[in-house]
Amino acid sequence: MRVSELGEFPLIERLGKIVDIRRADVLVGIGDDAAVLADRGDELLLATIDSQVEGIHYLPYLMRPEQLGRRALVVNMSDIAAMGGHPQFALVSLALPAETEVEWVEACYRGMQAEAGRFGVLVVGGNVTRSRSGVSIDIAMLGRVRRDHLMLRSGARPGDVVLVTGQVGEALAGLHLVFDPRLPVEAAVREQLITRYLEPSARIPEAAVIARSGRATAMIDVSDGLSGDIGHICEQSQVGVRLWAKLLPVSPAARSVAEAMQVPFWKLAMEGGDDYGLCFTAPPGAAPDLCTAIAQETGTVVTVIGEVLPAEDGRHLVLPGGQDGPLDARGWQHFGRE
Amino acid sequence: MRVSELGEFPLIERLGKIVDIRRADVLVGIGDDAAVLADRGDELLLATIDSQVEGIHYLPYLMRPEQLGRRALVVNMSDIAAMGGHPQFALVSLALPAETEVEWVEACYRGMQAEAGRFGVLVVGGNVTRSRSGVSIDIAMLGRVRRDHLMLRSGARPGDVVLVTGQVGEALAGLHLVFDPRLPVEAAVREQLITRYLEPSARIPEAAVIARSGRATAMIDVSDGLSGDIGHICEQSQVGVRLWAKLLPVSPAARSVAEAMQVPFWKLAMEGGDDYGLCFTAPPGAAPDLCTAIAQETGTVVTVIGEVLPAEDGRHLVLPGGQDGPLDARGWQHFGRE
Repeated sequence: MRVSELGEFPLIERLGKIVDIRRADVLVGIGDDAAVLADRGDELLLATIDSQVEGIHYLPYLMRPEQLGRRALVVNMSDIAAMGGHPQFALVSLALPAETEVEWVEACYRGMQAEAGRFGVLVVGGNVTRSRSGVSIDIAMLGRVRRDHLMLRSGARPGDVVLVTGQVGEALAGLHLVFDPRLPVEAAVREQLITRYLEPSARIPEAAVIARSGRATAMIDVSDGLSGDIGHICEQSQVGVRLWAKLLPVSPAARSVAEAMQVPFWKLAMEGGDDYGLCFTAPPGAAPDLCTAIAQETGTVVTVIGEVLPAEDGRHLVLPGGQDGPLDARGWQHFGRE
Repeated sequence: MRVSELGEFPLIERLGKIVDIRRADVLVGIGDDAAVLADRGDELLLATIDSQVEGIHYLPYLMRPEQLGRRALVVNMSDIAAMGGHPQFALVSLALPAETEVEWVEACYRGMQAEAGRFGVLVVGGNVTRSRSGVSIDIAMLGRVRRDHLMLRSGARPGDVVLVTGQVGEALAGLHLVFDPRLPVEAAVREQLITRYLEPSARIPEAAVIARSGRATAMIDVSDGLSGDIGHICEQSQVGVRLWAKLLPVSPAARSVAEAMQVPFWKLAMEGGDDYGLCFTAPPGAAPDLCTAIAQETGTVVTVIGEVLPAEDGRHLVLPGGQDGPLDARGWQHFGRE
């Protein structure tokens, strides 16, 4: 069977069965945003790796090298944030075609360094290799988290509410605008949304507030689209979920794109990756305090978008008209669904 | 300027100037086999990243997927060993063409797991992405080292001797046999050398003895060829070096390939990467004990091949006839010298 027939997540599941990670110093191996490793005292080490491949994750003619470097770092910092941790060190592996301009590579590194510097992350190592076609950047990110601040995908419980930081679907709206410049949308909106796609941010301050509160039960970053990412929480926590489309925080800017595309606004949120917001769960009684604390400390709005159900109740999305539909995991997957 | 005009190491030097790694918890950033990071008490964290790119680092029709997985892990474990450390955790990022067979990927992972298991390394995380052309495997490896066991490239002092573990040049001899099957070499020799190329080992037990001894002053793994790798020690230690070609431990098997190719045997050692032996320096008085300890504990022969000089005396290779030639860094470099 080919990997394109199996799909990304089933492949990862198969590979996870081959490697042996049963040891006391591995708290979490494959299956969360980052691996969790025993470290000094009450601190845990977090480690994750992710890549940006030309033509797959980004289109070179759309993205300046500074933006690419920045983005490659952000996607990894976001994974550490989603565990409740602080990113600390990055290792960068670059594969470059021989004809790549040195100035381009330097600009990419400057973007990386600028983003690293904002959050005290240090690029401590790297590797440069030749590639036969296209640039790819693999970054491994190390971080630390206090044991009692660790956030997993697996802690959601029936009765919890589901929350999300900021707006969702803006990056996908921006991507649509890139691919279809004729969509009738105001120039300022266009620019704002395309920038949201090209220059995402890792929600590190927001993650710190959530982790420190001790009230959230599960967390993931929204990288593949809400439906897929909530699906991961459901799988790891063995729960179901009900989301309300009308509660989804889709900005007026993104709604204007949905309207121009003649698709329902909530589709942008459910299917849109690349926002790098945080989706988390908490007991309903804890939600108001959490929302207030995040807004006060970071200025970011947090929205309740649904509730956690027992696994047997399944996964649902209540559409704006009140119809109850299945929550289809239509997020981004490598291989399958292309 | 293109990266092919600048060359790998000058590019890395330029990129190293862009990133900021000045912080108390970074003992060594870019410029050694691995980054050295402050960790719990007297233990340091080691982190490195390296890649195997199809068509650049390996030819798919030569290497079974098990061998590729094994090798991708070995090159990284070797970097941790060269710092005097123990490899502990691996993160694996795979880029795969959509038509890759799932069974191939599983076999690659089995090879990785087999090698990891030999040395107590755990594959704790990963990432799978689509590639537009060819497989590439990026592995980030984490390890730990006791502060007083840490081995850097920068500690060699004039008067030290230069030593190397095992035989050098066998992997390159094997690669020549792969590319030129008509070379007149015995079948058993052919098989032995090709296996040395396809299935290298990280010298973890040897590195542990060297690090524990407290007597070695600098260390590197032989991945790009002795001349280039010793060059790195010279640069980081700000010393010169004199090697004697006739002392180089080139096996009879490798010598028979050199003879068949009509090149001097020592060229295989100086230019041949992929051996993953350890090259290290130590005061002359410490060398006999070190050689004995390594041989007793691991069965590996260690050979004195030269001496460390003051920087102003330059880098030399004394040829078998006694002529003194410059030590040319003709090791493997990405980009330049293609």
